[in-house]
Amino acid sequence: MTSCIAASIDEGLILVSDSRTNAGIDNVSTHGKMHAFDTNSDRKIILLCAGNVATTQAVLEQLHRDKIKNAPVNFNTVESLFEAAAYLGHVSVEKQKQHSNSQGKSAFNASASFVLAGQIGTDPHGAYMVYAEGNTITSSAHTPFLQIGESKYGKPIVDRFLKLNSSLEEASRCCLVSMDSTIRSNASVGAPVEMLIYRKNSFSLEEYYCFDDDDDDYMWQLRRSWETKLREAMAALPSLNKETIKPMRIDL
Amino acid sequence: MTSCIAASIDEGLILVSDSRTNAGIDNVSTHGKMHAFDTNSDRKIILLCAGNVATTQAVLEQLHRDKIKNAPVNFNTVESLFEAAAYLGHVSVEKQKQHSNSQGKSAFNASASFVLAGQIGTDPHGAYMVYAEGNTITSSAHTPFLQIGESKYGKPIVDRFLKLNSSLEEASRCCLVSMDSTIRSNASVGAPVEMLIYRKNSFSLEEYYCFDDDDDDYMWQLRRSWETKLREAMAALPSLNKETIKPMRIDL
Repeated sequence: MTSCIAASIDEGLILVSDSRTNAGIDNVSTHGKMHAFDTNSDRKIILLCAGNVATTQAVLEQLHRDKIKNAPVNFNTVESLFEAAAYLGHVSVEKQKQHSNSQGKSAFNASASFVLAGQIGTDPHGAYMVYAEGNTITSSAHTPFLQIGESKYGKPIVDRFLKLNSSLEEASRCCLVSMDSTIRSNASVGAPVEMLIYRKNSFSLEEYYCFDDDDDDYMWQLRRSWETKLREAMAALPSLNKETIKPMRIDL
Repeated sequence: MTSCIAASIDEGLILVSDSRTNAGIDNVSTHGKMHAFDTNSDRKIILLCAGNVATTQAVLEQLHRDKIKNAPVNFNTVESLFEAAAYLGHVSVEKQKQHSNSQGKSAFNASASFVLAGQIGTDPHGAYMVYAEGNTITSSAHTPFLQIGESKYGKPIVDRFLKLNSSLEEASRCCLVSMDSTIRSNASVGAPVEMLIYRKNSFSLEEYYCFDDDDDDYMWQLRRSWETKLREAMAALPSLNKETIKPMRIDL
């Protein structure tokens, strides 16, 4: 499995991804899912990948080759993030089709999904989710984040605290806590955790972190701080009011 | 959808269920999913239900009729919770089969799952999950809870804090916070929220709460307390150490 979060907020972007892949519970590996492209200086494009690893690698390879061969459409020619996402969706569907009729186990699933994020020219920064079907959505003012892969365990915390006007620092911690909750509840999501903080209009990918394992200093401090405070929060919850006890229907 | 949690801990049982049902997003209703049986005084048996409402109602009706007609196997004759769960599984599979070949939409899904909890005779209290296939599992010392329906949003908090030696009061608040997170993230889970606290060996179902809507006093206090403390927890997280910034691979 995979878990990736992309926050697109006023100050810029936060991209967080795990690195665990598996082809069955007995075949677990580590592959980074965050990829940056060496494009012209007027743009930065980063992908987060989920789904079939062979498909995502084939897609990345095609995008790379289109770019270095100056294909009519490539990441250096697209004029907007929307156009970049549509192009990615087209390539993704092609690659999925190539293997979907292969002879093999009926459980075989070539599907893959992506988040494409970055900034092009004078357009604002942004992020697009590219579904397995090749169609795309972007984030919005009320839901300034996108998730691919295992999303549910980590969603309540970003639902509560990730806002358009959060600072990049707050948002980065919120996304890391969300990822940590996911890692804790789903064994198929795991370290290293990569995080990129992109400040709008900077066209710089310099604020990149990679938390190598569960014992990473910062992640350990983050987890301990969060757990301690959560324990206090749990202890501070109001007691039940026994006067509100009602008779239970014994209905059967 | 549905979300039900059953905690089986040293001091007894906590059962929590939502009440929203839907047959499509445009067909939402309210049906309680927690049902208590009027059995002999040596036992208490409570069910939590998820899945197709027609199936769960047919199952409840059959269990009820078996009991009042003194069928060879019914909730008054079973000698253990395991036996009760196996009997429930058998009835559930029969009822699912009745409609699985019906003419109708291909998307029709008659499946249902249950949690059966309670105490029988001198056996300890306990809880069993009954899958749609009729097989069952019980909780354990390391995972002293079961969930049916929408489980992921609310799982991190019970994973962290629900322990075998939690008090019933702590456990009840933990389950309610978990339910509140689920309600917040999944529109198909909703109030009223029912909660039963069963103290071991009491054979009493008197500690029953029903939080009628989102504006219920206690749930509102619980939510506000939790959010306030969570906000403090978020603010107290350690800052990123910029010295750990690494160069990002621009690999494509």
